[in-house]
Amino acid sequence: MTHPIPARTQVAIIGAGPAGLLLGHLLHRKGVDTVVLENRDRPYVEKRQRAGILEQGTMDVLRATGAAAGMDARGLQHDGIELRFAGEAHRIDFPALTGRSVMVYAQTEVVKDLIALRLEAGAPLAFEAEALDISGIEGEAPQIRYRHEGAEHTLTAEYVVACDGFHGIGRRIMPEAGKRTFERVYPFSWLGILADVAPSCDELIYAHSPEGFALHSMRSPEVSRLYLQVPPDTDLAQWSDDRIWEGLARRFAIDGDWKLATGPITEKGITPMRSFVTEPMRHGRLFLAGDAAHIVPPTGAKGLNLAAADVTLLAAALVRRYASGDESGLDAYSEQALRRIWRAEHFSYTMTSMLHTSPDDDAFGHRLQLSQLDYIASSKAAATSLAENYTGLPMPGLDELA
Amino acid sequence: MTHPIPARTQVAIIGAGPAGLLLGHLLHRKGVDTVVLENRDRPYVEKRQRAGILEQGTMDVLRATGAAAGMDARGLQHDGIELRFAGEAHRIDFPALTGRSVMVYAQTEVVKDLIALRLEAGAPLAFEAEALDISGIEGEAPQIRYRHEGAEHTLTAEYVVACDGFHGIGRRIMPEAGKRTFERVYPFSWLGILADVAPSCDELIYAHSPEGFALHSMRSPEVSRLYLQVPPDTDLAQWSDDRIWEGLARRFAIDGDWKLATGPITEKGITPMRSFVTEPMRHGRLFLAGDAAHIVPPTGAKGLNLAAADVTLLAAALVRRYASGDESGLDAYSEQALRRIWRAEHFSYTMTSMLHTSPDDDAFGHRLQLSQLDYIASSKAAATSLAENYTGLPMPGLDELA
Repeated sequence: MTHPIPARTQVAIIGAGPAGLLLGHLLHRKGVDTVVLENRDRPYVEKRQRAGILEQGTMDVLRATGAAAGMDARGLQHDGIELRFAGEAHRIDFPALTGRSVMVYAQTEVVKDLIALRLEAGAPLAFEAEALDISGIEGEAPQIRYRHEGAEHTLTAEYVVACDGFHGIGRRIMPEAGKRTFERVYPFSWLGILADVAPSCDELIYAHSPEGFALHSMRSPEVSRLYLQVPPDTDLAQWSDDRIWEGLARRFAIDGDWKLATGPITEKGITPMRSFVTEPMRHGRLFLAGDAAHIVPPTGAKGLNLAAADVTLLAAALVRRYASGDESGLDAYSEQALRRIWRAEHFSYTMTSMLHTSPDDDAFGHRLQLSQLDYIASSKAAATSLAENYTGLPMPGLDELA
Repeated sequence: MTHPIPARTQVAIIGAGPAGLLLGHLLHRKGVDTVVLENRDRPYVEKRQRAGILEQGTMDVLRATGAAAGMDARGLQHDGIELRFAGEAHRIDFPALTGRSVMVYAQTEVVKDLIALRLEAGAPLAFEAEALDISGIEGEAPQIRYRHEGAEHTLTAEYVVACDGFHGIGRRIMPEAGKRTFERVYPFSWLGILADVAPSCDELIYAHSPEGFALHSMRSPEVSRLYLQVPPDTDLAQWSDDRIWEGLARRFAIDGDWKLATGPITEKGITPMRSFVTEPMRHGRLFLAGDAAHIVPPTGAKGLNLAAADVTLLAAALVRRYASGDESGLDAYSEQALRRIWRAEHFSYTMTSMLHTSPDDDAFGHRLQLSQLDYIASSKAAATSLAENYTGLPMPGLDELA
């Protein structure tokens, strides 16, 4: 069931990923009119595998705004992660170090929950609605031209927020003058699998090994999510199930009798690793949020959480604008969001550099990695630093949206 | 006044830098016979400008063993450093974060103090004694052939410790089989000056700027020690005093009216930046300590302190060997020392990478530096991590030597 798409709204949102859907949710419940346009169909959006870790602030936003029923029923709260290196395992205890935790709850589930909430609320959401152009962003009535059900339409809004991902139209529309982009492409990728087997450990395992990085994660008590570092030009056809399981087992091996449980692999994919930021995140009445503005390598589990932080900050600013005409939050959005984004970019880069073997690196770099891991395992300050970055900063603007 | 050099001793020490002199001091006062051979003359050794920061553990060793009179009379205790970046200054408070401090006291002073103590004690120390060869290190009576006062001599010892620096003979004698070396050469150097002017600030200032790194330090209340990052192939003749002072002033500039005091420059030099480690640090009865085994870039002020930690650990092991025949400390020396060395290598690399502009780096890397600095300035865990590395780990074996 979808609802008719009006020709005018207050805030037009491009993209029904977690950023766009959460923004729509936060604004709708505060009485700000929104329309969400999504170029894919609903089954595609509800199935694409992405992140699976919600930091404390993301949990807080969902809970404070009535969107946490699914997460609280099916999510798995995690109070730590395990680091493995040099044949040993070391646990980082998040609540002991920071008072915060994280939640294992797949992005696909967050998306399904938010779509269901939006449709129940009768708020406009169009699938297979492709944004073709955004115009008038320097004036007071920006317009989105889009294609939907075989025809072209125009949506006139007061603000446009592009939550349309790295390849979306939003960033392309931002004027070149004053725009700066920052990028790092890593010389490795992740091969990720979903497998029908109970996780071999209750928590995530980040493993440094001579063969490369591996990550043990899960989607549910019955489904494991595992990743291993591979060269960027990897052909999935070269990786049989056996080769994947054997590679994972070697990378997770520790002194002692820990064993990786194996099972049928139901999905395989390659994830490239990239860091990217564009500045600023606002021009006139067009705002960028989430992957439209920034990408992190997945090692720090920050992508989805940064998107949630962007739209929470922006939602609070928009609510204030509609409540009192105060535009200061909108004016500060880009700079405020970017400070958190650069913190996450640095953390994600650091985790990535510390854990992966790089063809660019030498024996000295390899020893630096081991020294850094040994330091995190032995210094409370270093472990706290990892834990506070992993569990995340407090969510900005949340008190105004609850 | 020097004393006659015997033909036999228990521990032969090559090099009268801080490592060799401190080792000789620690062993002599515990009744272990030592001979120190130094290939330079005394005025040269007492004048060469090197490090100037003693970490807490180095202070502790000097104090616990009666070698701290000069330091306690003329050293300047520092309870923090300042970081400058993006036009702002942030102080890191060492005692508040770690309970420890550092001491500004030049390596030249430490060396003069230890030479005076050794000569007073009547312990053998030969200047202009050049080690030509070390033999028999796999047996029980290793020998050093050396040239002194125009003739060749042989010193027979039970153990040989090479504290003879990066270019010394000790590391060259270590057999190739089983040896591993690790190295990183940085694409920049430091131009350092001594100036007859009171320091512009009571504490050290580490400045990140678009033009490159600068460091404000001091030797005494009347003498400033300042450094600025330059390309590795820099010709000192191209750097007039005015150019140096103007470059420093721009790099230290902050929003506000802080001003760098200038004065006559009495010494100028270029310091290349290198990371280097050789493993293992022992073969048979030959041990390496200090720069003979490892080099750090000076950004973390770790070089002299690592040397002090090496010889404190080794002195405790030798004292135990002579007291009870227990060789376990000697057997563990290399591995134990290397763990601390790699911590310091990582810290020095991190400080260096965070603060210097690199021709290899891009705009993304520059923003990562600023995010890391901003994090250290705003997170207690991150500041504690810097402070605990800077003030240093407890000194190993000190309780056995006091």
